[in-house]
Amino acid sequence: MDFTPSPRTEQYLDAVRRFMTQHIDPVEPRFWAEVRAANPDGDWRKWTIHPLVEELKARARSEGLWNLFLPDSELGAGLSTLEYAPVAEQMGRSFLAPEVFNCAAPDTGNMEVLWRYGSAEQRERWLAPLLAGEIRSVFCMTEPDTASSDATNLRATAVVDGDEIVLNGTKWWSSGIGDPRARVAIFMARTPDEAADRHHLHSMVLVPLDAPGVEIRRMLPVFGSYDAPHGHGEVSFTDVRLPLSAVVGAPGMGFEIAQGRLGPGRIHHCMRCIGAAERALELMVDRGMSRTAFGKPLMSLGGNRERLADARIAIDQARLLTLYAAWKLDAVGAMAAMTEISAIKVAAPNVLQRVVDDAMQIHGGAGMSDDTPLAGFFAQARSLRLADGPDEVHKGVIARIELAKRGFGGRRS
Amino acid sequence: MDFTPSPRTEQYLDAVRRFMTQHIDPVEPRFWAEVRAANPDGDWRKWTIHPLVEELKARARSEGLWNLFLPDSELGAGLSTLEYAPVAEQMGRSFLAPEVFNCAAPDTGNMEVLWRYGSAEQRERWLAPLLAGEIRSVFCMTEPDTASSDATNLRATAVVDGDEIVLNGTKWWSSGIGDPRARVAIFMARTPDEAADRHHLHSMVLVPLDAPGVEIRRMLPVFGSYDAPHGHGEVSFTDVRLPLSAVVGAPGMGFEIAQGRLGPGRIHHCMRCIGAAERALELMVDRGMSRTAFGKPLMSLGGNRERLADARIAIDQARLLTLYAAWKLDAVGAMAAMTEISAIKVAAPNVLQRVVDDAMQIHGGAGMSDDTPLAGFFAQARSLRLADGPDEVHKGVIARIELAKRGFGGRRS
Amino acid sequence: MDFTPSPRTEQYLDAVRRFMTQHIDPVEPRFWAEVRAANPDGDWRKWTIHPLVEELKARARSEGLWNLFLPDSELGAGLSTLEYAPVAEQMGRSFLAPEVFNCAAPDTGNMEVLWRYGSAEQRERWLAPLLAGEIRSVFCMTEPDTASSDATNLRATAVVDGDEIVLNGTKWWSSGIGDPRARVAIFMARTPDEAADRHHLHSMVLVPLDAPGVEIRRMLPVFGSYDAPHGHGEVSFTDVRLPLSAVVGAPGMGFEIAQGRLGPGRIHHCMRCIGAAERALELMVDRGMSRTAFGKPLMSLGGNRERLADARIAIDQARLLTLYAAWKLDAVGAMAAMTEISAIKVAAPNVLQRVVDDAMQIHGGAGMSDDTPLAGFFAQARSLRLADGPDEVHKGVIARIELAKRGFGGRRS
Amino acid sequence: MDFTPSPRTEQYLDAVRRFMTQHIDPVEPRFWAEVRAANPDGDWRKWTIHPLVEELKARARSEGLWNLFLPDSELGAGLSTLEYAPVAEQMGRSFLAPEVFNCAAPDTGNMEVLWRYGSAEQRERWLAPLLAGEIRSVFCMTEPDTASSDATNLRATAVVDGDEIVLNGTKWWSSGIGDPRARVAIFMARTPDEAADRHHLHSMVLVPLDAPGVEIRRMLPVFGSYDAPHGHGEVSFTDVRLPLSAVVGAPGMGFEIAQGRLGPGRIHHCMRCIGAAERALELMVDRGMSRTAFGKPLMSLGGNRERLADARIAIDQARLLTLYAAWKLDAVGAMAAMTEISAIKVAAPNVLQRVVDDAMQIHGGAGMSDDTPLAGFFAQARSLRLADGPDEVHKGVIARIELAKRGFGGRRS
Repeated sequence: MDFTPSPRTEQYLDAVRRFMTQHIDPVEPRFWAEVRAANPDGDWRKWTIHPLVEELKARARSEGLWNLFLPDSELGAGLSTLEYAPVAEQMGRSFLAPEVFNCAAPDTGNMEVLWRYGSAEQRERWLAPLLAGEIRSVFCMTEPDTASSDATNLRATAVVDGDEIVLNGTKWWSSGIGDPRARVAIFMARTPDEAADRHHLHSMVLVPLDAPGVEIRRMLPVFGSYDAPHGHGEVSFTDVRLPLSAVVGAPGMGFEIAQGRLGPGRIHHCMRCIGAAERALELMVDRGMSRTAFGKPLMSLGGNRERLADARIAIDQARLLTLYAAWKLDAVGAMAAMTEISAIKVAAPNVLQRVVDDAMQIHGGAGMSDDTPLAGFFAQARSLRLADGPDEVHKGVIARIELAKRGFGGRRS
Repeated sequence: MDFTPSPRTEQYLDAVRRFMTQHIDPVEPRFWAEVRAANPDGDWRKWTIHPLVEELKARARSEGLWNLFLPDSELGAGLSTLEYAPVAEQMGRSFLAPEVFNCAAPDTGNMEVLWRYGSAEQRERWLAPLLAGEIRSVFCMTEPDTASSDATNLRATAVVDGDEIVLNGTKWWSSGIGDPRARVAIFMARTPDEAADRHHLHSMVLVPLDAPGVEIRRMLPVFGSYDAPHGHGEVSFTDVRLPLSAVVGAPGMGFEIAQGRLGPGRIHHCMRCIGAAERALELMVDRGMSRTAFGKPLMSLGGNRERLADARIAIDQARLLTLYAAWKLDAVGAMAAMTEISAIKVAAPNVLQRVVDDAMQIHGGAGMSDDTPLAGFFAQARSLRLADGPDEVHKGVIARIELAKRGFGGRRS
Repeated sequence: MDFTPSPRTEQYLDAVRRFMTQHIDPVEPRFWAEVRAANPDGDWRKWTIHPLVEELKARARSEGLWNLFLPDSELGAGLSTLEYAPVAEQMGRSFLAPEVFNCAAPDTGNMEVLWRYGSAEQRERWLAPLLAGEIRSVFCMTEPDTASSDATNLRATAVVDGDEIVLNGTKWWSSGIGDPRARVAIFMARTPDEAADRHHLHSMVLVPLDAPGVEIRRMLPVFGSYDAPHGHGEVSFTDVRLPLSAVVGAPGMGFEIAQGRLGPGRIHHCMRCIGAAERALELMVDRGMSRTAFGKPLMSLGGNRERLADARIAIDQARLLTLYAAWKLDAVGAMAAMTEISAIKVAAPNVLQRVVDDAMQIHGGAGMSDDTPLAGFFAQARSLRLADGPDEVHKGVIARIELAKRGFGGRRS
Repeated sequence: MDFTPSPRTEQYLDAVRRFMTQHIDPVEPRFWAEVRAANPDGDWRKWTIHPLVEELKARARSEGLWNLFLPDSELGAGLSTLEYAPVAEQMGRSFLAPEVFNCAAPDTGNMEVLWRYGSAEQRERWLAPLLAGEIRSVFCMTEPDTASSDATNLRATAVVDGDEIVLNGTKWWSSGIGDPRARVAIFMARTPDEAADRHHLHSMVLVPLDAPGVEIRRMLPVFGSYDAPHGHGEVSFTDVRLPLSAVVGAPGMGFEIAQGRLGPGRIHHCMRCIGAAERALELMVDRGMSRTAFGKPLMSLGGNRERLADARIAIDQARLLTLYAAWKLDAVGAMAAMTEISAIKVAAPNVLQRVVDDAMQIHGGAGMSDDTPLAGFFAQARSLRLADGPDEVHKGVIARIELAKRGFGGRRS
């Protein structure tokens, strides 16, 4: 339970911080303004990638700041979850940084699935270009017509038909599916099997986005923003027919893979939230000390200093809990660290939402505009309280485990 | 202190409700989708008004559901603030309704200023077409470079030069300035006067938006949404030279007019928040009972029912406090009702924000998209916690009055 | 829905306020110190009544400030619930006042039960001396061995045996049972009846406290305080045999009577909370302006002024909601006002608890001692969140009604 | 930053846990009932020590579970602050345990002061019997007539007069001063010195409680409880004349010593809070699963499971932050760990207060009585939010440091 950054963490953290200071911070405001200008919401089919992205990726890759999330020492940096966590926090200060270092969701989770469960063929076809940053990918889990936080509710199907598998269903909130570089989706669906228990009824299938029957219907805005050029899409799969070799692992293994996928991904999300919260706190301080009203800096009015202190206390606690969850995940695996992973999944986005709300209040109207990253951080926090399981579901998990500890096992409600 | 709706209130409430049920509810989802499609964010200069708006306005006007906010019995409906409040609540359930009934901000506040303080010429030139719903208007108060909640911070100037007045300064968050029908702005600025105390140093000036020197620089998004086709703009005034007759009241009266303007406007804002909160609560219930997870309707999971009850308690309290503030405003004027007006200005938007946040959580991703009005309600609540004075400033006002009640007067902090 | 105090309310309010200022405020600190000194916790059987109580009662009675809670114009003041509410608020500023005006719980509720449902004999034997302030009474509902908020859980029995009724069971939190003047308890218990539905299975029985089989076992402290000389007792009833004429109304009517009893009682409790909260706010201001730290009055440090404003907003909202509930109770009865009564039962004690917590924080250690009424107010608020149904049960009621409004009736969870 | 319990921590933790399970848990409920019965509030001068205390102390000492808090390897266990922290958490589950292991406040802080700063004579006279558990001690800092959280406000004086020092002033909230074994107080007062800066104007003096001029005036209840047989007293010092050798360190060193004293003491307080919160959570679960209402265990009603999860998340975060503060205190000293120490001082008692409040709500009336330790835990949490600096002062410290980090140093408000 040693949270001291390892020497390798220190080294990467330093390099990433320096890279961001030199190459990202100076251009980011201009970058996003240009991205917004070039990608009007009206027509996501015309979205384009700003050339700076690929330039920065090339530079980061050449400096060895690439795929740092992947525990594999050859393909990635070989960092443990705990070791990578502070690096993720640092990247979370920017919306551009994660992609530049090829550490952006949902690619990271998808690469990890392929790395752990992919066949040689799958790894060559999809993992290789993803690791190279040549293509992007999507994870298709949530469905529009059902409460998807209960996996048994999923209606999409992946039916084995001889040596093929046939996919049907509609997904939404498929993040990144509007990106012109997106090539493949991991599709999660029910595979009927009378012999299987409820944890072996799902499959994950790798679907090329140009496969016949795949249709992107629309992008969904989050608080009015389409997150161009990535987007969150609604996509239908109609009789999409693929060889069985497109299945990750084997039919029926979807649930197990999903559980494994979510552990490190949640750590990354939460650490990025903490980085974002730190940046929001800095913006709050700087703005609050540079503007004056009623004869004082805003920061010294009313309860603002108490809110600043509350933010510091909350951020430090959320960081420590996330590091603890990372350490436990590394030590005993995602199943045994379920309480901690669910706990940070609740804690970190809520801390970010509150800190950003306070920072906005100090910024006045500017805080809601695109002149600061605050509105973006807010949407990130708010979305994350739903994505990968809403707060309430995670609290239910924690409560169930807590009851079991006292001998009251097996009761859901 | 009788909050029973008057017979006239009942009658208007009924008629407005029926109108909304028949003519607005059925078309509103389609309406906003078409508005968004027709008005891409990229170029606000091309924004257009959906023809349905003018059709609905004509119908509402022909049915006598027009200018209900105005206490004048000839020009408006002659309702007191308290009488109009429940009608405003009803309109607040929809983003389209207020404009349809010619009861939308900032026109309502601007019309009230013209009605109370405008010269005959001003009333003919600006109030008449506003009351007729032919043009729209803007209120230019907030500035980008200063904490505008402290009016003494304003940097914009309105300098008397013979029989002219010369305007300079930059404003932002000038709501509605992107609307192609916007014709006039009320511009609030400092008028240097060595003889005047600090409450007589501001002027309000009526500025035609096509006057030389007025330049709209950009629209500002709120959480990524540009609120097309109305917009919140940044606008500069450079040596704008107008006849003195463009001044509302007289130079130096700006502060006094502003104070009077804000009372009823805040009541309207808060009642619309309450209407929005009621609608969010209905959406929460309907969604929560129509979706099932883990064997139960979402509404019956975890703390959802308690949150529903908390919402009901909070909404009812906020409504009663707003009605009380309206009653007091009518009875003793805005100055004597300052605690109550500041109190609702804090309470109502915060209740809306919390109820919407909970409703979103029940909706999953849909709650953040444009498929429901929730994201719009959220932006409304969040903005309103800053507009017309941030929460913290209003709390400061309340505290000062509370201290004065116990004999500790005159201390700001 | 007119909350303007009626002329009679104004008159009583004035008189009560004057009485308290002249006769209670000056002696109350000394009074409680003497009560505490004279009534050590160790032996409640030796508790005595301070002579000042009876003196003040005599004076109040002679001034016509007596039984103001009772809607009966001959026996009481004939005030409606709404009319009495502001008077109850005023009394709630003091722990002594309610008894002085013969308006203290649980006597008020018990008197109302006897007034509404009592036989002539019961009224003569018990109501008359209660109205005269000669004896005190107890309400025995809660049981130690079961979650009593669900009335169907009650284990105590009241079994009809010929023309007698036989009582068995253990009750606790029987408030006031340690008072040397306590003479009678209303005992709520199950009366087995195979033909009855679950709302007709309880009886209320008037039990003389000296009846054979009644044994007070101990007093229960609330946060360490025994509330001498009244106390909250645990009391057992063992084969207590009484004539059938001791039953209020008739066997099986207990549930109905309980529901009716609770409406006005909850209004009184909540209004007293609001009076207590107002007093706590005054104490907070006075202390906060009379002490200085770091060069400023405490009130001007950190978030204290915002907390003061929050308190004002919360108190005003809770008062309005309670007045609304009182008005609705008068207008349409307790059943139809169930949402509002449950809502204030949640809102008012929680507001008091929060305001007192903040006031304590400004007082430092003094706030937790007996040097101020704050610790007493705190215990009052905390207890009331449990008494007469815990917050959670009331929220459940509100949620159920809210769901039914949208057509989702009949579901408990 | 390794929070893994050291082997020695594990060993002591195990032994302490076993001792508590065997010797404390079985007797504690009876113990406190007997203490309360034997020590009525009315007359603290007759308070006595229950014989069990000394028996248990003897046993603990013989088992080597003694003075574990003291970093000195000969006099104590030689544990670092971080190593001792989990042991303190374990002891915090009981109100009796800390004294049994001679690890109770304020003795621990006082012993640490003597160990660090005491002269040989002072250590022999006072430290030795304290370490032996033969006497108890008091810390006299807070004053009734001033906001003592600002040390410059202190009015008590310690004036050097030749080779004597003369003490005057009134202190209150002097915890433990009612204990019949209390023999010595550390008295903090101003020592006038024109040459000294404001950090060298205070002295700490060791005052035998039987010195002429020391008068204990009364005990102060906390929420009605006198904490017998220890008590929190108000005590006056009138021309108390002592040899200069009674001064700890030297005149003028009081502030510096106080700062050093508070670091480890706050860690201990916070870890005990966390132990108490864990125990409250267990009580909540056990009660909530053993009682049924409306057909379900209480734990499964309304938001109770979410509150349980919230409690788990909050406790785990508070523990990690406290361990982090302990680690930092050990690594870089109290000054450099000021943010973290202030942060836990805010976080831990507030977490305890909230968890206990929720646990009470599940317990009904029992939760406020003496039948469970909850009311005691509540008073502990509530007091601790004031003791050693109120929340608001600690938040002020954190905010100041946070501002300084961004280059805005030296501003207090």
